[in-house]
Amino acid sequence: MINDLAEKILRSEKAAIARGISLVENESPQASVLLKKLYKNTGRAYLVGITGPPGAGKSTITNSLTKLLRAKGHTVGVIAVDPTSPFTGGALLGDRIRMQDSGTDEEVFIRSMATRGSLGGLSRKAKEACEILDASGKEFIIIETVGVGQSELDIAQTADTTIVVLVPESGDAVQTMKAGLMEIGDIFVINKSDREGSEALGIALRTMLHLKMTRESDRETPVVKTVASRGKGIDELLDLILRHKDYLAQKGKLESKRRENLLKQINELVNHRLEHKFWTAEKKSQLDEKIALISGREITPYDFVDGLFTDK
Amino acid sequence: MINDLAEKILRSEKAAIARGISLVENESPQASVLLKKLYKNTGRAYLVGITGPPGAGKSTITNSLTKLLRAKGHTVGVIAVDPTSPFTGGALLGDRIRMQDSGTDEEVFIRSMATRGSLGGLSRKAKEACEILDASGKEFIIIETVGVGQSELDIAQTADTTIVVLVPESGDAVQTMKAGLMEIGDIFVINKSDREGSEALGIALRTMLHLKMTRESDRETPVVKTVASRGKGIDELLDLILRHKDYLAQKGKLESKRRENLLKQINELVNHRLEHKFWTAEKKSQLDEKIALISGREITPYDFVDGLFTDK
Repeated sequence: MINDLAEKILRSEKAAIARGISLVENESPQASVLLKKLYKNTGRAYLVGITGPPGAGKSTITNSLTKLLRAKGHTVGVIAVDPTSPFTGGALLGDRIRMQDSGTDEEVFIRSMATRGSLGGLSRKAKEACEILDASGKEFIIIETVGVGQSELDIAQTADTTIVVLVPESGDAVQTMKAGLMEIGDIFVINKSDREGSEALGIALRTMLHLKMTRESDRETPVVKTVASRGKGIDELLDLILRHKDYLAQKGKLESKRRENLLKQINELVNHRLEHKFWTAEKKSQLDEKIALISGREITPYDFVDGLFTDK
Repeated sequence: MINDLAEKILRSEKAAIARGISLVENESPQASVLLKKLYKNTGRAYLVGITGPPGAGKSTITNSLTKLLRAKGHTVGVIAVDPTSPFTGGALLGDRIRMQDSGTDEEVFIRSMATRGSLGGLSRKAKEACEILDASGKEFIIIETVGVGQSELDIAQTADTTIVVLVPESGDAVQTMKAGLMEIGDIFVINKSDREGSEALGIALRTMLHLKMTRESDRETPVVKTVASRGKGIDELLDLILRHKDYLAQKGKLESKRRENLLKQINELVNHRLEHKFWTAEKKSQLDEKIALISGREITPYDFVDGLFTDK
């Protein structure tokens, strides 16, 4: 059954890709069987991460970029890391569902993944979902994140090119720096650039970028203005992505970047497995027994954890 | 030496508190010795979490609230979870340093903690820093986070009362919901409420709050307007915090909330320890040996990790 699924994914069948990602998302034991089978067919897709504060228009940028890539004949996969809706338990898909449904385009695959629940798990699962899209032959994979916290930054950084989307009203440049966005962007987008404050944000950004706060010191980090809702500036953005792709390839940096991400991925796999193995029924019942004493401050959590490790 | 430090912390000596938090931050082996000693003196402080998008004025709210609490005779501790500055390697303290330095007030302790590096570690360390402040006798501890990602949300949620700060320009209410903020707020603040759009944001927020998306279904989640830079609305905010405190106490919810946080803390301690134990020199060298083969897709990371667990 997994062999069959893997073959269908390699043939880029949409339903199979969706099922594969669901296995990953639900932490099915079959997920790792599938991922092992697909792994040798991965590494060919180019990963683009899109992050920035809520309301900056990341989904609109993602949609416009996807359309442009399709227009140029490229196959595209999109993983949108969305928080779970409190109403439905599903992801807040918004216009994404509409985009997905309206298109019968076989060469685009769009999927939202929820953040609720496991924190570390999300980053791991998002990467595994990218592997499935990669194996399916998508040439470009866009990973879009909703928040601007550490976990989202981590996900955005697993991309080959990371795009930070800002808007004039997202506050001054210092706030952007505070949120940790300055350091991770390979390309900065000032979206909704027809609004007031876009000039000032552009100047502040460029000033900060000149201070060499970015990953690559031998490269000028570009800033591009867009009005994504009207498709303005998207051509230029794609051009900048492709130039960054060439830059990484020429400098041999793509390989080192991917190796670093692989190390992180291995670490996440290990942590997940360790946690799962550690909490035996016996240890869980010890916790149940002692939690009242720890709450009552008769036992410290530190001593309790010491005990879990020495008992064996 | 740790005995001495613990006693000084219990006497609320600033230098000792600072040293204790540094031990925690640097993951010194002495940190757990200290925390074990202090634990029975914790649980008395009331924890207030402040979160929201970058630029919403969280630091200003924290500062105003601290001043007001002091004016009312309460002792206060502040942990600001800040990203590390790319320039100095230290935390971006901003006006916080000034506030700290200008005051010789012995009853306030303010500390920034950096997010760079360990993701899970930050949440654990922030809580441990709160334990030190708690043991030192601070009646109120404010935990302020900079980002709005999952890890920051987790930290903000370890508080007894979680305040979500928004500004009219932080985008529409749907964006707030998307960022996961709606569900975690016990109190919502519309800061910079003298700006355009504050009415609309207030209406949207209240509408969404009526849909019962919050943690407590038997309580109306309040929305308060502030202009923190001018101290406007801070009295009302404190009043709402104290009312929420009473509510939790009356309903017996404070205890259950804290027990839940304790379980999370134990989990974090376990994960940290497991990871540390797992990566022996031998396993690290196995990784070094095989990483090129994994990068080259001759071995999958999944099979490699399987191997690390079966070898023993």
